[in-house]
Amino acid sequence: MKYRIGIDLGGTSIKAGVVDEAHNIISSHQKPTLEGFELVVADMAETAQIAAEMVGLKWDDFSSVGVGSPGFINPQSGLLVLSSNTNWRNKPLKQELQKHIPVPVFIGNDADCAVIGEMIAGAAKGYRNILMLTLGTGVGGGLILNGRLFSGCDGMGAEFGHTPLISDGLPCACGQNGCLEVYASVTALIRQTKEAMKENPETQMHAHVEKYGEVSGKTAFDCAREGDVVALRVVDQYCNYLANGIGGFITLFRPEIVLIGGGLSAAGDTLLDPIRMKIGKFVFASNYIGTPQIERAALGNDAGMIGAAYLGDI
Amino acid sequence: MKYRIGIDLGGTSIKAGVVDEAHNIISSHQKPTLEGFELVVADMAETAQIAAEMVGLKWDDFSSVGVGSPGFINPQSGLLVLSSNTNWRNKPLKQELQKHIPVPVFIGNDADCAVIGEMIAGAAKGYRNILMLTLGTGVGGGLILNGRLFSGCDGMGAEFGHTPLISDGLPCACGQNGCLEVYASVTALIRQTKEAMKENPETQMHAHVEKYGEVSGKTAFDCAREGDVVALRVVDQYCNYLANGIGGFITLFRPEIVLIGGGLSAAGDTLLDPIRMKIGKFVFASNYIGTPQIERAALGNDAGMIGAAYLGDI
Repeated sequence: MKYRIGIDLGGTSIKAGVVDEAHNIISSHQKPTLEGFELVVADMAETAQIAAEMVGLKWDDFSSVGVGSPGFINPQSGLLVLSSNTNWRNKPLKQELQKHIPVPVFIGNDADCAVIGEMIAGAAKGYRNILMLTLGTGVGGGLILNGRLFSGCDGMGAEFGHTPLISDGLPCACGQNGCLEVYASVTALIRQTKEAMKENPETQMHAHVEKYGEVSGKTAFDCAREGDVVALRVVDQYCNYLANGIGGFITLFRPEIVLIGGGLSAAGDTLLDPIRMKIGKFVFASNYIGTPQIERAALGNDAGMIGAAYLGDI
Repeated sequence: MKYRIGIDLGGTSIKAGVVDEAHNIISSHQKPTLEGFELVVADMAETAQIAAEMVGLKWDDFSSVGVGSPGFINPQSGLLVLSSNTNWRNKPLKQELQKHIPVPVFIGNDADCAVIGEMIAGAAKGYRNILMLTLGTGVGGGLILNGRLFSGCDGMGAEFGHTPLISDGLPCACGQNGCLEVYASVTALIRQTKEAMKENPETQMHAHVEKYGEVSGKTAFDCAREGDVVALRVVDQYCNYLANGIGGFITLFRPEIVLIGGGLSAAGDTLLDPIRMKIGKFVFASNYIGTPQIERAALGNDAGMIGAAYLGDI
């Protein structure tokens, strides 16, 4: 078939888009994410139907519909096992969608969809072994091995954000301690920034926050670029955590390319250059076998929707 | 062909064995590991030839010869990239062996061979997704995904012992800091035991060491079994480190079974029971999706030789 359709379920909005053979989004529609599982699912189907009708297409024009969702997804059983945003547990996402959609529905984790999108149409075109980390409220991860999505032997793995970075370290929302997510998410960076500001009344970050309203993932990076010593220290420590985490994954998987996505990736080379410089230190035997290239994801917020559209193919 | 032959290159001895269709070793021979790459390789070929002749077989009776070696192996190029024991670097192990052996030679890391052996003939028979960790001087690891060995996209990965457990932690022989190996190897356990003994003159471990000669990986486990509080604390902390490392790998790979091998696995359930009890705490969402079973490897020192014999098949 010529067209594909993907739905991206987000915490604040549902987005659906029709993707053509050149991997471009030719129509899209979105609705706010309301409360209640059945209602949200009906809205997801409606959003997709509207996006299709905008370009004169109907369900029969698609061989499948793909859905990316945050949380813990079992693509095999079709269950949304756990979503901490909505507090949904063991919801039959695929089955419920199938009540509204007459072609096969495939569901996947949003980070998995993002890496598929980047492989098909983004920064990892032409690569077959790709690790993507998404730095946002948490740390998401998606992995392509030999051209196929790898999400653990039972489909419940590859939870990169919840592997140890500091054993017995700070508590993580998942119930463990010291997960990578606790040190390398944007939430973590904001905490690290606030701590440094509290300890260092002289840092320019205070003036920056007064100007822009609140501490964000940009605060330390912006002030570091202007040479603020405290901000430089925050950025350096954050990049050490992130590079150590990425380095461990390279040591295990040896992907051809590592992509960084999510809100923080907007920092571009200010974030990527320190990671590229540090990564050799955190990869086993990197002197002998090198390290993969590290790039910024290209599709931004569209990656999930585009990747979802291809879930049936991967 | 009816028979296979495997060579296990160790730091102190070279062992070779002929394996029959029932995966039994029907003959084996060994020689001490001398110095010098060419000499060791010639000895490896000779050891295998003698093992074959002991049961009336010659090279032509085998479709291939497999070799397991410690260190960093590239099965694709045939290079032994790095061996810290012997200080060999970029040695053409496969090519040099091929000068002596007229059938195809396959080389692999010793931990990779061990997990293959356990899948074919040991504790993981019938499983297709297996993680094995070998606890010895270092921490080695081997991984089978969907019935096939996974050693990273370029064959240089799956170095489980050199992923982060404590970012910026104690220095590792590999040049990194805070690797799992620094906390979960037998070497690490011995260091942890010695530190606890130094700080606690009252522990029974002092008497144990006087009786048995030196601190070993058994010291703390033996005394913990007898109720020594300091030894119990050492074992508990060690098991936390190990379970946290294993838990991270489960969170990524979700294998069906985890095997523990190497010298320390002789402790049996004294080691495995605490790990089994703790593992849920260190696996993401284990309340919802469970944890794989954890078992002791079955083949002991023969795993590497048996697994090497099957390198050409996997």
